[in-house]
Amino acid sequence: MSKAVSRYPVPKLEDLPLDVRDRVLQVQEKAGFIPNVFLTLAHRPDEFRAFFAYHDALMLRESGLTKAEKEMIVVATSGVNHCPYCVIAHGAILRIYAKNPHIADQVAVDHRKADVTPRQKAMLNFAVKLARAPEAVTEDDLQPLRAHGFGDEDIWDIGAVTALFALSNRMAHLTGMRANDEFYLLGRIPAASK
Amino acid sequence: MSKAVSRYPVPKLEDLPLDVRDRVLQVQEKAGFIPNVFLTLAHRPDEFRAFFAYHDALMLRESGLTKAEKEMIVVATSGVNHCPYCVIAHGAILRIYAKNPHIADQVAVDHRKADVTPRQKAMLNFAVKLARAPEAVTEDDLQPLRAHGFGDEDIWDIGAVTALFALSNRMAHLTGMRANDEFYLLGRIPAASK
Amino acid sequence: MSKAVSRYPVPKLEDLPLDVRDRVLQVQEKAGFIPNVFLTLAHRPDEFRAFFAYHDALMLRESGLTKAEKEMIVVATSGVNHCPYCVIAHGAILRIYAKNPHIADQVAVDHRKADVTPRQKAMLNFAVKLARAPEAVTEDDLQPLRAHGFGDEDIWDIGAVTALFALSNRMAHLTGMRANDEFYLLGRIPAASK
Amino acid sequence: MSKAVSRYPVPKLEDLPLDVRDRVLQVQEKAGFIPNVFLTLAHRPDEFRAFFAYHDALMLRESGLTKAEKEMIVVATSGVNHCPYCVIAHGAILRIYAKNPHIADQVAVDHRKADVTPRQKAMLNFAVKLARAPEAVTEDDLQPLRAHGFGDEDIWDIGAVTALFALSNRMAHLTGMRANDEFYLLGRIPAASK
Amino acid sequence: MSKAVSRYPVPKLEDLPLDVRDRVLQVQEKAGFIPNVFLTLAHRPDEFRAFFAYHDALMLRESGLTKAEKEMIVVATSGVNHCPYCVIAHGAILRIYAKNPHIADQVAVDHRKADVTPRQKAMLNFAVKLARAPEAVTEDDLQPLRAHGFGDEDIWDIGAVTALFALSNRMAHLTGMRANDEFYLLGRIPAASK
Amino acid sequence: MSKAVSRYPVPKLEDLPLDVRDRVLQVQEKAGFIPNVFLTLAHRPDEFRAFFAYHDALMLRESGLTKAEKEMIVVATSGVNHCPYCVIAHGAILRIYAKNPHIADQVAVDHRKADVTPRQKAMLNFAVKLARAPEAVTEDDLQPLRAHGFGDEDIWDIGAVTALFALSNRMAHLTGMRANDEFYLLGRIPAASK
Repeated sequence: MSKAVSRYPVPKLEDLPLDVRDRVLQVQEKAGFIPNVFLTLAHRPDEFRAFFAYHDALMLRESGLTKAEKEMIVVATSGVNHCPYCVIAHGAILRIYAKNPHIADQVAVDHRKADVTPRQKAMLNFAVKLARAPEAVTEDDLQPLRAHGFGDEDIWDIGAVTALFALSNRMAHLTGMRANDEFYLLGRIPAASK
Repeated sequence: MSKAVSRYPVPKLEDLPLDVRDRVLQVQEKAGFIPNVFLTLAHRPDEFRAFFAYHDALMLRESGLTKAEKEMIVVATSGVNHCPYCVIAHGAILRIYAKNPHIADQVAVDHRKADVTPRQKAMLNFAVKLARAPEAVTEDDLQPLRAHGFGDEDIWDIGAVTALFALSNRMAHLTGMRANDEFYLLGRIPAASK
Repeated sequence: MSKAVSRYPVPKLEDLPLDVRDRVLQVQEKAGFIPNVFLTLAHRPDEFRAFFAYHDALMLRESGLTKAEKEMIVVATSGVNHCPYCVIAHGAILRIYAKNPHIADQVAVDHRKADVTPRQKAMLNFAVKLARAPEAVTEDDLQPLRAHGFGDEDIWDIGAVTALFALSNRMAHLTGMRANDEFYLLGRIPAASK
Repeated sequence: MSKAVSRYPVPKLEDLPLDVRDRVLQVQEKAGFIPNVFLTLAHRPDEFRAFFAYHDALMLRESGLTKAEKEMIVVATSGVNHCPYCVIAHGAILRIYAKNPHIADQVAVDHRKADVTPRQKAMLNFAVKLARAPEAVTEDDLQPLRAHGFGDEDIWDIGAVTALFALSNRMAHLTGMRANDEFYLLGRIPAASK
Repeated sequence: MSKAVSRYPVPKLEDLPLDVRDRVLQVQEKAGFIPNVFLTLAHRPDEFRAFFAYHDALMLRESGLTKAEKEMIVVATSGVNHCPYCVIAHGAILRIYAKNPHIADQVAVDHRKADVTPRQKAMLNFAVKLARAPEAVTEDDLQPLRAHGFGDEDIWDIGAVTALFALSNRMAHLTGMRANDEFYLLGRIPAASK
Repeated sequence: MSKAVSRYPVPKLEDLPLDVRDRVLQVQEKAGFIPNVFLTLAHRPDEFRAFFAYHDALMLRESGLTKAEKEMIVVATSGVNHCPYCVIAHGAILRIYAKNPHIADQVAVDHRKADVTPRQKAMLNFAVKLARAPEAVTEDDLQPLRAHGFGDEDIWDIGAVTALFALSNRMAHLTGMRANDEFYLLGRIPAASK
C-alpha cells in the first residue's frame, strides 16, 4: 500500500525550472495545496509545460460549454477509464464549478443516470463513446449533438477535452498518480466551496 | 432530470405490512433517514423480505471478512457495474466501517489502485471477475485467495456478496433507484462518522 | 473431472433444519429427485431460506408473464452467463411449462433466433441486456417493452427474474454447482413431460 | 416465428446436380432425415461441394483427436458463437460419438465446467480463443497443448476444425439456418443412439 | 523473429500432388511469385483443394458485387481480425482490382472512414458485424443492405466472403502464415499495377 | 465520400499566427508537403502549439527507445484504435526511421506477429494494453519491460507516447482527419526513402 504521489521521483520545488515552479506556486496559492498532477508531471518539465498549455488552451477558453460542463466531460470519461486521480481531483472541481455537491459522484459512476440535462446527457454520451471506442465515432454521432444546439466549435471542445483526458488518464495509470487527500471533501459542504 | 426515488410507486409507511414497516422504521432510527432501497423494494413486500433476509444472512454473519471488507466488495463490484445507488450508499457505509474517508472513492473507481492490502486486492480481483465475467471463474481463481489465507467459507462470502449485489445493482438500474442525499457526505468528516 | 454436486460440503438431509428439510423433501416428492441447487445452498440454511423466498415471491406470483415466459428469461440470461446448472435445470422446467421440447435449447443458444413471439423477443432482449450490461439500461429500453403491451409490473418481473438469476448464476459458478442427470431429458419426450 | 429451413430458397432434390443429390441422399439414408445444412447450402452447389469436401477432409481424416473430440470443438466454438444450428446438430453428433447423453449440453454452455479431461479442456480453451479472439493466439498458446501431448498435426486439426466452423457458424447466422427437429433428441436416450 | 512462411513444414513443389502443383504453378505464373497461402495450405492437399474450390466458387462467380468489392470485404474483415497475411495480401489484390493505391490501407484500418460509397459502407458494416459478432446479426441487419439495392444473392455473397475469410484468418493466425514481401508494394505505383 | 482534410475549416497559411505558420512551413520544407495534422490542428493555434510542443518534447528527446521504436508505438496503438491518419502517416515515418518497408503494415495489423525483437514485442504489448484498457495496467505490467532492460524513463516514454497518441487518435476521429496521399508510398521503395 504505497502512498507515494507517483511511481516516479517527485522533484523538489527549488529544483524546478522557474516557469514550472511559478505555475506550481500559483496553483498552490489558489487551491491551498499542490495537486499531485503538478508534482508528477514536473518530473519532465517540457512535457509539463505542454500538458498545461494544452489544458489551459482548452479548459479556459470561451466556449458554448460552461466550465462545469467541461469538468463533467473529464469526470465522465475518467470514470469509464477508471482513473482514480482524475475522478477524484476533477470531481472536486466539478462540484465547485457546478455548485452541486452530488453531481460528481453521479457522473463518475454512470453519466446516463446523473442529474444532468438532456443536452448534457447527449454531450456525455458522445464523450464517453469517443473515450472508449473512438473508432466507432462517425458523422452520425454528431447529429444528436447538433439537435441539442451544439455548434461545431462546441463539438470540438467536447472531443478535445475527452482527448486530452484520454492522455491524462493514461499518464495517471502509468505513474500510479495519487489523488491528494484534500480533493475528497472539496465542494461537498456548501460553506466549504465558497 | 427526475429526482424520483424510483421509477415505481413508493408506498407510504402506513400502507406497508407491519413487519416491513418495522424494518423501515428501525433503519430510519439508526441512520436518521430511510435509505431509498427500502422504499423502492417495499413496492413488493415479499421481495423486500427476501432481499433483506438474504442481505442480513450474508452481511451480518460472522466471517473471516470484516464488515468493511464485505462493503469493499459491494463498492468494487457496484463500481464495475456502474450502479449509482450502490456505489454512493455502500460507499458511505464502507467509509464508516473502515473509519477511512477516502477508501470508498478509491475502490469504486479502481480497486487495483486503492489503498487496500494485497489480501484485499486478491479478494476484490476475484469479486470483480465474478461480477463481470462469471463464466470465466474456475477452480484456478481460488488459488490466489487461498494463498492469502482465505478459507472456503470466506470464499463463499466473497462470492455470495458479489452475487447478491449483482442482483441489487440490476434492481437499482431497473428501477432507476436514486441515492439519498444524506449518503454523499456520510463518513467523510472524522467527527461526522463517530 | 470431479462429479461432485458442489465444491462445498453437501449436508445430509437429517442434519438440515426442519423447515429446510421440509422444503427439500417437497421438491423431491414433486420432481422425483432433489435438484442440486437445494443441496448446494442448504450448506447455509439462512441463505437457502432467503433465496427460495425470493424465488417463490417472484416465480410463483401472478403476473402478466406466463410461467414459461419467466423460465425463458432464466434460460436466456443464464445462457449468456454460460451457467451450466441454470441452463440445464431451467431448460427442463421451460420445456415442461411451454410444452415444447425444442424451445429451451434455442433460447439458451441464441434467443434472437428462437421460436418465440416478437413480444417474447423484446422481453428477452431487455433481460439479456440487463444481465450483461446493466449500466447500459436506460428509460429508452422500456419503450419496446411498452410497445408490446408490457405494463410496469411486468417490466419489474422481467428485470427482477433477470436480477435473481444474476445472483443464482454467480452462486452456481462459485460453487461449481452440477446439474442433476435427470434434467437433461425432462420435457424432451412428449409422454415424459406429462 | 418463421420455421423456414433457411432465409434462402431450398432446392428440390430433383433439381440438384447429381453429385450433390447423391451426397444428400447418402446422408438421408444414414441419418434417416436430411440435415438442414445440406438443403441450405445446396442453394449454391459449388459452395456446397467445397464445404463438404473441407468438412470430410478434416472431420474424417485420421487424427490424434477422436471423432468425439472434433465434435466437442465444433460444439464449444459454436456455443461461444451462439449458433443454434451448429450447437443443436453437432451436439447430437457429439452425444452419439461420445456415447454420452450429457456432454453436448455441458460443452455448449461452458466448456470450462464440462465433464472433459484436462487434455480436452486445454484443447477447448485453445479452440474457443481462436474462435473469438483469433488475433490473440500466439506461439505461447501452443505450450499448454504440447504439454498435454498434442502434436503439431493435432494442433492443426484443432485449429482447422475451429476455422471451418467459424465459417459454418457465420453461414448459419446469415441464412437463419434452422436445426431439424430430429437433432434435439438424438443420442439422449441410450437405446436411441445405438 | 522467425521469418518462416508457416509454423508448419512447407512442401517442395515436386512433392505435391499433380493437381495441387498445377494450381500453385498457375498462380506463380500469373503473379510472378507463389503467395504463401498456397505453400502453407499445401501441407494438407485435401484441405488445400477444398479451400481453393470454395475460394473460386465465391470470388470468381458473377455477382452484384464487383471483384474489388469482394476484396474490400476480405480486407475489412481481416482488418478487424488483425490478420497480417490477409490484410497485406488481399490489400494488394484490392489495390489492383480497384485501381486505387490508397483504398486498401483505408479499409484495413477503419472501413467507416474509407473512401467508399455509402452502398459499400453498408456492405462493410454488415460484413464486419458478421465477422466479429455473428450472433448479433438478425433479419434487421438486412434492411440497410436492401435499401442500398443489394439483392438476396448479393447478401449471400457478402456473408459468404466474410465467412470464408473467418476461416482463412484463423488458419493464418494458427500457422503464423507470413505475407510475401512482394505484396507490400503491389498496386501502389500506377505503372507497377498494370 | 468527402475528401476534405478535416471536418473543420482549414486555415490559409497567410491567416495563421507567425509561429504556427513557421512550424508549418518547416515541415513542408522537410517533407515536401504539409501533413494534414498540421492543417487540421491549426484551426486552433493554441492547441496546435501545445500539441506539437508535447510531440517534440517526447518524440525528439534522447531516450532508451530509438526513434523507430517510438513510431512503432504510435503505429501499434493507432492500429488498435483504428485511426487512419495516424496509421498511414506514422506508418510512413516508421518505415523511414526503421529503413524497413514492411514493418509498419505488420505492426499496424498485429504487433504480436510483426518482425520485431522480443524486447520490442514487450514494449508494444504494454503500449497496446495502456491504449485500450488503461485501467488494467498495474505494477505487474512493468515486470516484463524491466526484464527486457527498459528503465523507468524508458517506461515513461513508452507510456507517454501511447498517451499522446490516445489524444491524437481521438482528435483524428473527431475531425475526420484525412491522411495525405503522399504518405502511402513513403519509405516503401528503398530509393524513395533516402
